[in-house]
Amino acid sequence: MTKTVGEYLLGAGAVGHLGRVLAGHADSPGDRVLYLVDHFFEDKIRALPLPVKAADMLLYVDTTDEPTTESVDALVATVRAGQPVKAVVGVGGGSTLDTAKAVSNLLTNGGVAADYQGWDLVRVPGVFKVGVPTVSGTGAEASRTCVMMNHGKKLKLGMNSDYTVFDRLVLDPELTASVPANQFFFTGMDTYIHCIESLGGRYRHAFADACSEQALRLCRQVFSGTDMRSAENREKLMVASFLGGSAIGNSYVGVVHPFSAGLSMVLHTHHCVANCIVMNVMDEFYPRETEEFRRMADANGIRIPRGLCRGLSDEQYRALYDATIIHVKPLANALGEGFRDVLSLNKAAEVFQRM
Amino acid sequence: MTKTVGEYLLGAGAVGHLGRVLAGHADSPGDRVLYLVDHFFEDKIRALPLPVKAADMLLYVDTTDEPTTESVDALVATVRAGQPVKAVVGVGGGSTLDTAKAVSNLLTNGGVAADYQGWDLVRVPGVFKVGVPTVSGTGAEASRTCVMMNHGKKLKLGMNSDYTVFDRLVLDPELTASVPANQFFFTGMDTYIHCIESLGGRYRHAFADACSEQALRLCRQVFSGTDMRSAENREKLMVASFLGGSAIGNSYVGVVHPFSAGLSMVLHTHHCVANCIVMNVMDEFYPRETEEFRRMADANGIRIPRGLCRGLSDEQYRALYDATIIHVKPLANALGEGFRDVLSLNKAAEVFQRM
Repeated sequence: MTKTVGEYLLGAGAVGHLGRVLAGHADSPGDRVLYLVDHFFEDKIRALPLPVKAADMLLYVDTTDEPTTESVDALVATVRAGQPVKAVVGVGGGSTLDTAKAVSNLLTNGGVAADYQGWDLVRVPGVFKVGVPTVSGTGAEASRTCVMMNHGKKLKLGMNSDYTVFDRLVLDPELTASVPANQFFFTGMDTYIHCIESLGGRYRHAFADACSEQALRLCRQVFSGTDMRSAENREKLMVASFLGGSAIGNSYVGVVHPFSAGLSMVLHTHHCVANCIVMNVMDEFYPRETEEFRRMADANGIRIPRGLCRGLSDEQYRALYDATIIHVKPLANALGEGFRDVLSLNKAAEVFQRM
Repeated sequence: MTKTVGEYLLGAGAVGHLGRVLAGHADSPGDRVLYLVDHFFEDKIRALPLPVKAADMLLYVDTTDEPTTESVDALVATVRAGQPVKAVVGVGGGSTLDTAKAVSNLLTNGGVAADYQGWDLVRVPGVFKVGVPTVSGTGAEASRTCVMMNHGKKLKLGMNSDYTVFDRLVLDPELTASVPANQFFFTGMDTYIHCIESLGGRYRHAFADACSEQALRLCRQVFSGTDMRSAENREKLMVASFLGGSAIGNSYVGVVHPFSAGLSMVLHTHHCVANCIVMNVMDEFYPRETEEFRRMADANGIRIPRGLCRGLSDEQYRALYDATIIHVKPLANALGEGFRDVLSLNKAAEVFQRM
């Protein structure tokens, strides 16, 4: 069981010290840095104190949809057409961070993204990579994967590898100050859900347990009050996201993520919203946590979307089921090896209908 | 504020997978690995499932005394006389791990150990280094320093550098099964003390707080019962030590460590025993924790040495005071900038007399 976490810089204003993080890796005058920045910042890039030099390359990552092998390959082609880069800096949410990790790996390993979807297929370390999250919760900053949709193969799978982990992190809670309330809550809940799934599973692990317990405590502090976006809470959630990501890298998710993946695959719902929609109807699988989740949403005035699966066809329910039940490890973790008996097509359809 | 943690492998029997950790770094037939092993294992080296090949080099680290710049330089000279090594594996307690980190840095940076005692003096990454702790508590496996006595300059100081951090860790709680009760307790308490000092200080930090809080919880689980060395508790303490080391790398110690350093400098008391001797008389600085500490010692049948400073000369008290009050940052962290007013020579002597 391996887990990697990079060096990081944490604190309000930390992003102003990004240059320090690149020291020794990409700080000679000719060293070219590739910045991959969430397209959300396209018209406010000057507000980010990034030390971009003339020789550097800055590309925006379109995060309207989640990363695909095609979107990653297209970015890599653009970068390969220019001078070599000495470092990759990803600035954004989980989609941007995952994209940056994938691009870094491909620049040294060659080939296309789909070649490395799976476990330990990345052969050599990627380009020195730095993660700068701008929203907290996914744990992408800490994980050893970078999830991409592969439309050709109809699968959603990451490059699971020690080489996928960021070499350095800059955790600056000021960057999350402008995240809208809904997105802040939905994304933050990814951490909460990782942790309750990990702690509620059969495959336990002392390190994952320790990280999950503490991340959960921090989530409760952040979301039980009515001011989840205070400066103090934003810093706590950034730490919780990192710890939650570290935990889940050493354990498995449970029932929520498979259902959520179904929604993403079939209805194209974004990961974090999908998680919350599922969490909201998990009464029989995680009764106490489902109640707690609803209380936290209420306290912060967040409405969880409902009615998503109303009026779907039998075929669509079948597709949702197939995209859920394929997640063997998480479901066995949560429900035991006989998870298919617990989670029949009818049972799953019933759960989806409540969403 | 930077902190680095390496990739790690955690679990009973993890050391059997050391080869996996070296993969890609020192696994070609000619790649030479340097094993630095605590001399405690000299007559039971076969019990350690280390993948030592004929070409590798295995040296024992004499941990009778704590590492010195001289002891590190002597090891480096031995290694430099042979073929270059591709990886350094440290197997032992804090002294061995610190030695391994120092040797790794010197092999690529040249010069002698004293050249790098201080902050950010190490210029380039050391040889790929792996830490394998065999006793839990010091946090040396997680820290960015390697503490060495420098008898010439009469100081105890480490190579504080991002490059000092292990690239990989193997955390195998089976390795701590044979640690005698006293040593298990004294070393484990280093984590407890790091955490209460960090949380009791003025320089707080969301990440350090989170790690300290969880490490403290684990320490309480391990030491509040009467079976601190059960398999479950050994695994928990290994995680606690790692988290505590991560915390202290991002914050400061308090009153205990400066007094403890005084004992080590003047009376040559080993770090972890010295910590416990000091902690046992901290009633006025950490009243609740001192009581809790005594309860944990009692529960596990551990007697803390006393009478250490009885009958010392005025000169010796002066030397103890000088070696304590020099720790400006920790004392300011615990007592504020006016710490010299709180901790006069007389006051310190009074505390030492109670030990």
